[in-house]
Amino acid sequence: MDAPRTADLGFARLDPDRAARTGTPEVVYAAGKTPAETVACLAGLLDAGTVPAWATRVDDATAAAVLARWPGATVDRRARCVAVGDLPPASGSVLVLTAGTSDGAVAAEVAFTLAASGVGCRRVDDVGVAGVHRVLAVAPDLRAADAVVVVAGMDGALPSVVAGLTDRLVVAVPTSVGYGAAFDGLAALLTMLTACAPGVLVVNIDNGFGAGVAAARIVRSVRGSAG
Amino acid sequence: MDAPRTADLGFARLDPDRAARTGTPEVVYAAGKTPAETVACLAGLLDAGTVPAWATRVDDATAAAVLARWPGATVDRRARCVAVGDLPPASGSVLVLTAGTSDGAVAAEVAFTLAASGVGCRRVDDVGVAGVHRVLAVAPDLRAADAVVVVAGMDGALPSVVAGLTDRLVVAVPTSVGYGAAFDGLAALLTMLTACAPGVLVVNIDNGFGAGVAAARIVRSVRGSAG
Amino acid sequence: MDAPRTADLGFARLDPDRAARTGTPEVVYAAGKTPAETVACLAGLLDAGTVPAWATRVDDATAAAVLARWPGATVDRRARCVAVGDLPPASGSVLVLTAGTSDGAVAAEVAFTLAASGVGCRRVDDVGVAGVHRVLAVAPDLRAADAVVVVAGMDGALPSVVAGLTDRLVVAVPTSVGYGAAFDGLAALLTMLTACAPGVLVVNIDNGFGAGVAAARIVRSVRGSAG
Amino acid sequence: MDAPRTADLGFARLDPDRAARTGTPEVVYAAGKTPAETVACLAGLLDAGTVPAWATRVDDATAAAVLARWPGATVDRRARCVAVGDLPPASGSVLVLTAGTSDGAVAAEVAFTLAASGVGCRRVDDVGVAGVHRVLAVAPDLRAADAVVVVAGMDGALPSVVAGLTDRLVVAVPTSVGYGAAFDGLAALLTMLTACAPGVLVVNIDNGFGAGVAAARIVRSVRGSAG
Amino acid sequence: MDAPRTADLGFARLDPDRAARTGTPEVVYAAGKTPAETVACLAGLLDAGTVPAWATRVDDATAAAVLARWPGATVDRRARCVAVGDLPPASGSVLVLTAGTSDGAVAAEVAFTLAASGVGCRRVDDVGVAGVHRVLAVAPDLRAADAVVVVAGMDGALPSVVAGLTDRLVVAVPTSVGYGAAFDGLAALLTMLTACAPGVLVVNIDNGFGAGVAAARIVRSVRGSAG
Amino acid sequence: MDAPRTADLGFARLDPDRAARTGTPEVVYAAGKTPAETVACLAGLLDAGTVPAWATRVDDATAAAVLARWPGATVDRRARCVAVGDLPPASGSVLVLTAGTSDGAVAAEVAFTLAASGVGCRRVDDVGVAGVHRVLAVAPDLRAADAVVVVAGMDGALPSVVAGLTDRLVVAVPTSVGYGAAFDGLAALLTMLTACAPGVLVVNIDNGFGAGVAAARIVRSVRGSAG
Amino acid sequence: MDAPRTADLGFARLDPDRAARTGTPEVVYAAGKTPAETVACLAGLLDAGTVPAWATRVDDATAAAVLARWPGATVDRRARCVAVGDLPPASGSVLVLTAGTSDGAVAAEVAFTLAASGVGCRRVDDVGVAGVHRVLAVAPDLRAADAVVVVAGMDGALPSVVAGLTDRLVVAVPTSVGYGAAFDGLAALLTMLTACAPGVLVVNIDNGFGAGVAAARIVRSVRGSAG
Amino acid sequence: MDAPRTADLGFARLDPDRAARTGTPEVVYAAGKTPAETVACLAGLLDAGTVPAWATRVDDATAAAVLARWPGATVDRRARCVAVGDLPPASGSVLVLTAGTSDGAVAAEVAFTLAASGVGCRRVDDVGVAGVHRVLAVAPDLRAADAVVVVAGMDGALPSVVAGLTDRLVVAVPTSVGYGAAFDGLAALLTMLTACAPGVLVVNIDNGFGAGVAAARIVRSVRGSAG
Repeated sequence: MDAPRTADLGFARLDPDRAARTGTPEVVYAAGKTPAETVACLAGLLDAGTVPAWATRVDDATAAAVLARWPGATVDRRARCVAVGDLPPASGSVLVLTAGTSDGAVAAEVAFTLAASGVGCRRVDDVGVAGVHRVLAVAPDLRAADAVVVVAGMDGALPSVVAGLTDRLVVAVPTSVGYGAAFDGLAALLTMLTACAPGVLVVNIDNGFGAGVAAARIVRSVRGSAG
Repeated sequence: MDAPRTADLGFARLDPDRAARTGTPEVVYAAGKTPAETVACLAGLLDAGTVPAWATRVDDATAAAVLARWPGATVDRRARCVAVGDLPPASGSVLVLTAGTSDGAVAAEVAFTLAASGVGCRRVDDVGVAGVHRVLAVAPDLRAADAVVVVAGMDGALPSVVAGLTDRLVVAVPTSVGYGAAFDGLAALLTMLTACAPGVLVVNIDNGFGAGVAAARIVRSVRGSAG
Repeated sequence: MDAPRTADLGFARLDPDRAARTGTPEVVYAAGKTPAETVACLAGLLDAGTVPAWATRVDDATAAAVLARWPGATVDRRARCVAVGDLPPASGSVLVLTAGTSDGAVAAEVAFTLAASGVGCRRVDDVGVAGVHRVLAVAPDLRAADAVVVVAGMDGALPSVVAGLTDRLVVAVPTSVGYGAAFDGLAALLTMLTACAPGVLVVNIDNGFGAGVAAARIVRSVRGSAG
Repeated sequence: MDAPRTADLGFARLDPDRAARTGTPEVVYAAGKTPAETVACLAGLLDAGTVPAWATRVDDATAAAVLARWPGATVDRRARCVAVGDLPPASGSVLVLTAGTSDGAVAAEVAFTLAASGVGCRRVDDVGVAGVHRVLAVAPDLRAADAVVVVAGMDGALPSVVAGLTDRLVVAVPTSVGYGAAFDGLAALLTMLTACAPGVLVVNIDNGFGAGVAAARIVRSVRGSAG
Repeated sequence: MDAPRTADLGFARLDPDRAARTGTPEVVYAAGKTPAETVACLAGLLDAGTVPAWATRVDDATAAAVLARWPGATVDRRARCVAVGDLPPASGSVLVLTAGTSDGAVAAEVAFTLAASGVGCRRVDDVGVAGVHRVLAVAPDLRAADAVVVVAGMDGALPSVVAGLTDRLVVAVPTSVGYGAAFDGLAALLTMLTACAPGVLVVNIDNGFGAGVAAARIVRSVRGSAG
Repeated sequence: MDAPRTADLGFARLDPDRAARTGTPEVVYAAGKTPAETVACLAGLLDAGTVPAWATRVDDATAAAVLARWPGATVDRRARCVAVGDLPPASGSVLVLTAGTSDGAVAAEVAFTLAASGVGCRRVDDVGVAGVHRVLAVAPDLRAADAVVVVAGMDGALPSVVAGLTDRLVVAVPTSVGYGAAFDGLAALLTMLTACAPGVLVVNIDNGFGAGVAAARIVRSVRGSAG
Repeated sequence: MDAPRTADLGFARLDPDRAARTGTPEVVYAAGKTPAETVACLAGLLDAGTVPAWATRVDDATAAAVLARWPGATVDRRARCVAVGDLPPASGSVLVLTAGTSDGAVAAEVAFTLAASGVGCRRVDDVGVAGVHRVLAVAPDLRAADAVVVVAGMDGALPSVVAGLTDRLVVAVPTSVGYGAAFDGLAALLTMLTACAPGVLVVNIDNGFGAGVAAARIVRSVRGSAG
Repeated sequence: MDAPRTADLGFARLDPDRAARTGTPEVVYAAGKTPAETVACLAGLLDAGTVPAWATRVDDATAAAVLARWPGATVDRRARCVAVGDLPPASGSVLVLTAGTSDGAVAAEVAFTLAASGVGCRRVDDVGVAGVHRVLAVAPDLRAADAVVVVAGMDGALPSVVAGLTDRLVVAVPTSVGYGAAFDGLAALLTMLTACAPGVLVVNIDNGFGAGVAAARIVRSVRGSAG
C-alpha cells in the first residue's frame, strides 16, 4: 500500500486518499459532532481536494452552520445531508423502492448519496407487498436498472419479493419504521437477512448512506470507473 | 360457570368438560411425558367421553406405546400426532399453505388437528414469495376457503402477501426452518407480527396445533357449531 | 388476479381495490407522515370511493388538519384515530376485554376499527386475573360474542384464562403497559404466544387496529360478507 | 462475623458453618463435577457434621457412585437429587402446585429440598389456567398452607391467578417446558416477574432447589427456627 | 371461593375484597391513568372500606390532585406514592438495604409499602460489595430482622453476599440504575436470579411495591395475621 | 410479468423460470428434506432444463443418494453442496477471503456457488486482522477482483478493514465460528452491519450461498449477462 | 482485613480506606444523585483525607454546585467530571486512541481519570480501521506506552487491530456511538469481547472511568506504587 | 511497521513474528480444525521458531494426533490445551480464583496459558461469595500477586468483591456454568461488565486463554520483558 496521507485536525484525522482507494471519499458523520466540528471537517476535506465534501446525519443547527459558511451548499433536510461544491453529473441508473411513505427519509439519504456520487436514481415509493400488484407493476423497471435498493420497515418483506423478479443486485435497507415487535428495525433486519430469495444484500438499519455507496460501486463497476 | 369436572390421575388432572366450554377437548401434550403417562392421559380422556382422544408432540416410543394399547389408533409420524377413536367427518374448508417443503412437518400438524376437529383441509405446498407467481396462482383458492393458514420459516414473508389477496382470516405459523439470523423461528415470528397487511394473526413458532384449533373455531363459527 | 388499480400520489401509491380484495380498505398509517400527507392520502382514498376513509396513529396536529379539511370527521383522541365519511351501521358483536385501565388506549383503537368496519363492539374493562372472579363473571358474555379481543399488558395472562372459558376465537393484543421486565410489551407478547390454552391468536404489541380488522373478518365470516 | 470454618478439599472449599449462618447447609451442585468429586464433597460435608449431606443436579453416574459409597442414600431420580444420612422429621406445610404434568421434575426438586430441610409438602399437579376451575378448587388449600410454590412453564400465568387467591407468600418457579417463543423458560420468567398480582417472588428457571430453600425459610420463620 | 364483590367505575372494576383474600388491598397503579382516574379509584376504594387507600407510580400532577381532594393525604415524592387515610401502626421489622445511594427511590417505595401495610422498616443505605466490610458490619442486623429486602442496580451482586450471612428470607429488587451493559436493570435481574446463594427471591426491576408486599406477608406470617 | 411456469411435484412446486428472471436458477435447500426429496427436486429441475441442477446444505446421506442416481455428480463435502450436470466455464474473478481457517466451510460454499454460476474465484485464507499485514499484502488483489467476499467469524472485523482498501463491492459473510459472546455468529453479524467503512453488504450468518449468488450477479453486471 | 472505616452520611456510607486497599479512592457516581448529595459526598471524602475528591457523570447543575462550593475545582464538561483539590503530578504514559471523533467524550473521561490518578496520558483521535494506515502510523507509540486504551463505537473493530501491533495491555472501551444494529454499544461490546487478537480486556459501554482506573493500576504496577 | 513474515500453509497463513510484536506467539485455535490441520499448524510454528508451539480448544482426537507426532508434548485434558517444546521457566505470580469447582476447566486454561507464557500461577478454588469469609481469607494473597484472574459463572459476583480488596488488576472471566437465566454465561458477563468496583477488566465467556495472555502481559510489564 502506498503511504496514504492523513490530514490531522487534532480532533479528527482526515483520510483524503480514501476516494482514490475506495471510490468514495471520506464523508463526515455529523452525529455526535458539534456544528463547528462538522464545518471544520468539510473545510479540511475541501482543502485536501475532495469535491463535493459532504456530510450525513446533519441536524438543523449544523445545516445552518454549513449554509452560513458556504451559502451555495446543497442541503436536503429530509435526507439530513449537506454537500459543499458542485455535485458531479449523473450517469447510470439505480432504482430505489420504498415499502411505505414513512420510509421516505431513509430513501432520501440513498438518493442524496447517489447524487453526490454521480449516479442516477429513480424512486418509486409505497410499493409494499400488502398490494403486491404494485410490485409486479415495476418488474420491468427492476430489470432495467443497474442496481436496485429496497427500503422497508415493519415486516421488511419487500426485498424477498423483489429479488425473485430481477437479476440485478438488490441492496436491502431495513428501517426503524414500525412499533412493538418491529423493535426499531430489528424485525425488518432479520427478515432481510433470512430472505428466501438469494441475492439480497443488507446494510444497517436506516443506513441509506451505506446502501447508496454500495449501489454507486455497482454502477461504477458496470459502467467503468468514471461512474 | 357451572362447576366443571376434573378427572384426577394423580400426576395429571384432566379437564373433560373443555370441549363443552371451548369447542376443543383437552389434547395431550406428550413432550416431557413418558409413554406410559401419555397412554394414561389418553385412556382417561376416553373414559370421560372424549372421542377421539388425541396427543401432539409424540415421539416414536410414545407412538409405539399407543399402538400397542390401541392397534387401530391413527398415527401421523410426520405430524408427530396420534388419535384414538374415530375421527369425525369433515366439513368446511381450510387452505393450508407452506412457503417451503421444509415447513411440511408443521403443516402436517395443522392438517392433523383439523382432521381430528372434523374440519376439511386443502394443502398447497412450497409457494414462497421468491417466486410470487406461485402465490398469485392460488389467489382464487384463498378467497374460496373458510380460513387460511400460512406456514413459513426463514423470512416469514408469505402471510404479508397472502393477507393482501384475501378477505379470509389468515392464521400465520412461523417455523424454526432456517439458520443463522432466522434464530430458530424468531425472524419469521417478528415478520409475521409486523406484517404490513392487517388481518394476520400469529401463533407460537412451530405451533401447528394452535393454528389448527383456531382455524377450526373459525370454520365452526361460519358453519355453525356442528363444525 | 384482475389488474388492481393504483392511485399514484407521488409520495404514496394508494390501493383503492384493497377493500374488494380483503374486506378492509387501505387505512392510512399516520405515524411518520406529515399532517398534509395524511390529509392527502385520506382525500385520495375518498376520491377513489373508499368511505369512510380512515387513519390510525394520528397525533394532535394531524387530527387538527383533518378537522380543518373535513369539519364533520370523526376523531377519537384516545384511540388516536380519525375517519372521514359516515361510519357504516354496526352488526355483529365483538367483546373487547382489558386487563387494566391503562390498556384503554389500545382497546379504544380496537373499538374504533370495529366501528369503522361496521361491526358492533362491547367493552368490559379492568378484568385482570389478579381478581379472577371478574373474568368468571363475564363467562356468559364470552360465549355470546361473535369473537373476543383481549387487551393486556404486564404479564399478559388474561387470554390464557379467557380461552379456557369460550369457544369463540380469542384475539390477543399485548400492550406496552408495564415497566422493567415487561420490556415494552415483550413479556405480554411471549406470554400470549405460549398460552397454555389453544385458540389464542396474537397480533403485534399495541396493535389494536390489526386486532379490530381480524375480529371484523371473523364477524363477516359468521354473518356473511355484508358485515 | 465470627470466623467461619472452611474445609479445604483442594478442588473445593466447603463451608460447614453455612447452616448455622443461613439455616441451610451447603448443598453440592453436581453439574460440572465428576461423580468422584460429588462423592468427595458429600463425604466432606458429613465429616464436618452436615446431616443429611445432599446434592442436586445429579446424573445417573453420580447417583450410582453415591449409592456405591452409601447404599442407604436417598435417591430421587426424577428430582435428580441424593441425600446421605437420615432426613429430618417434617413440620409445617408447603403447597406445591404445577401448571402441567411436564413441570413435574422441577416440582420434585422442590419437594426433595423441602424434605431434606425438614419441611412438609403437599403437591397438587396439573392445575393450569386453561381450566381455571382447577385452580379455584384448591383456593382453600392455598390459604391453609404456610407458603405456596407454583411451578409453571409455557405462559407461566398460574402464579398471577394464585397470588390473587391467597395471603400466603407465593414463590414462582418458571420452567423450561414449552417450545418456540417459550425460549427455554424466558417467557414464563418474564410473565412471573411482571405478574399483575403483587406478592409473587421469582427464582431462576427450573430452580426447584432455590424455591424449596426459600419456602423452608418461610416455614421456619412461621414455626420457629427448629423448622 | 365466596363470590367476591366488584365495584364498577366504568373505566375500572375495583376488587374491594382483595385484602380479605390476599392480605393486601387493591392498590392503584397510577402510571397510564389520568389524575382524575387515580382520584376516582382512591375514592372508590375508600367507599368500599379500604383504609388507607393508596397508589404507586404517582407523578406530580396526580399527587397535587390527591392533595386537593384529601389535604391530609400522605405523599412521598421520592417513593412516588400517596396514601389516603391513617396509616396503620407498625409492627415487625424488615431490614431494607441499598447497594448505592442512587437506588434510594426504589427503596423508598419499599418503605412506603411497608408503612401502608403496617409493618416496621429499618433502612441501611449504600452498602455495596465494593467495600464488603460495610455488608459484614450489618450481619447482626440481617439476622435480627423478620425479613430482608435488598435493592441494587449495576451488577446486582449484593443479594448473593447477603443471603450467605442470614437465615432470613432475602427479597431482591434489581434497579435500573447503571448504564451500558446494565441494560436498564437486566444485568442486575439476571445476577439476582442466578445468585449462588439460595434463598434469594426476586421481583421485577424497580418493583419496590412488590418487594414490600412480599415482605409484609412474611412479617404477617411470622407475627400472626394482625401484621 | 409473463406467466412463469410452475413444476408441481406435490411436496414441492419448482420455479423453472427463476434463472430467466433472476440470473440464478432455483437451488435446492436440502436441510429439512429427505434424501429422496432432494433427489426428486434435482431431477425435476433437470427435467425443466436447469443445468446444472444444484443443492446446498447436503448431508452425507443425501450426497450418497445423489451419487447413486447420478454417479458423475459434483460433490463438495466441505461445502456441503452437490451439482448434477456440467458446471459452466468460469469467467470473471471474485476474491474470497477468510479471517481464519475455521471459516473454511463457509468459504467453500461461496466457491461452489461461484463455480456453479460460471464465475471465477480466487481464495486467500486466514488473513485475520490480528496480523493486519496479511490483509495489506493482498491489497492489490482486492482492487483487481470484480468483487470481494469476506468470510469471518468471532469479531467479524475483517470487512471493515478490507472495505477501506478497495473500490470493489465487499460482500461480508458472518460465520458462527467462535464461542461465548460470539453468540453463534451474532457478534460478527452486528460488527459487519455497523462497519465503519461504507460499501459493506451483509448476508445471513454462514450463508455462503447467498454471498456467492450476489457476487455472481456483480460479475455478470460488470462483464455482461453471459456471466 | 483490618477493620476499614465507614463514614456514614445517612444517605451514603463513604469508604475512605478504599484508596489504601485498592489504589483508587472512592469516586462519586453523580448520576441519580442531587447536586447537594454529590457536594456532600465530595466534602465527606475530603474530610476523610481523600485528595483530590472526584466525581463522574456530572451534569451542568452539579458542576455549578461544585464550583459554588469550591471555586478552584477542576471541571471537565466534555468528560462530565469534576475534581476538588490539587491533581497529583503525572508519571507514566498511557496511550488513548479513539476510532472516531464522536467517541471523544468517553476518551475525555479516560483522560480525566488518569489525570486524577496521577498518570500521564497521550491521546490520538480518529484512527478508525476504515483507513488502517492511520493505525499503522501509531504502531511505534503503541509499543512505547505503558498501556493502551482504545475507545470505539460502531463496529468496535479497532482493538482487534491494535492488539496485533503491541505487547502492551489493551483496554477496550465500547461506546454507544452509532445507530441501528449498533444497539447502543452492544455491537462494539460483542466485537471487543470476541476480538481475534488476545490480550484485549473490555469494560462496560461508555465506561471511560473504569478503563482509566485499570490503566492507572497497570502503570502503577510497572512503575511502582507511587504511580 | 517492519514487514512481518507470513508462513503460507495454503489453508492457513501463519504469523511467526507475532511474539515479537505482541509478546505472545500465534496460538492455534483447534476448534473447527481437523487434527491434521492442527498438527500442521503446530509444525509450521515450530519450523518458524516458535517454541513452545501451542494450541487451545483441543479435543481428544487432536490431542492423540499431537502425541502421535510429538510423544513428549504437554497435554492438559481438563484445560483442553497442548504444547510442543519445552515450557519456559516461570517467573512472577498470578493468583487465579474460581467461584466454584465447576469453573475448573476454564481456570485450567488460564493456568496452562500462564505456564506456556513463562508466568507463575497460584490457584485458589471455590471461594464464591455465598460464603464471603472465604474471599476475605485470601485478601493478603490478592495484594501479593502481580495480577488476579477471577473465574466465575452463575451470578458472576466474585470480581466485584475481589476488586474492592486489592490494588492489583483484576481480570474477570465469566463462565458458562449455570442454567436458566444464566443464559450460558450471559448473566455472569453482564455482572462483570457492570461491576460496582472499578478496575475489573473482562474477557469473553469461558475465555481462559485470553485472560491468561492478558495476565502474562501484566506480569511482563511489572517484571520486565523477559517475562
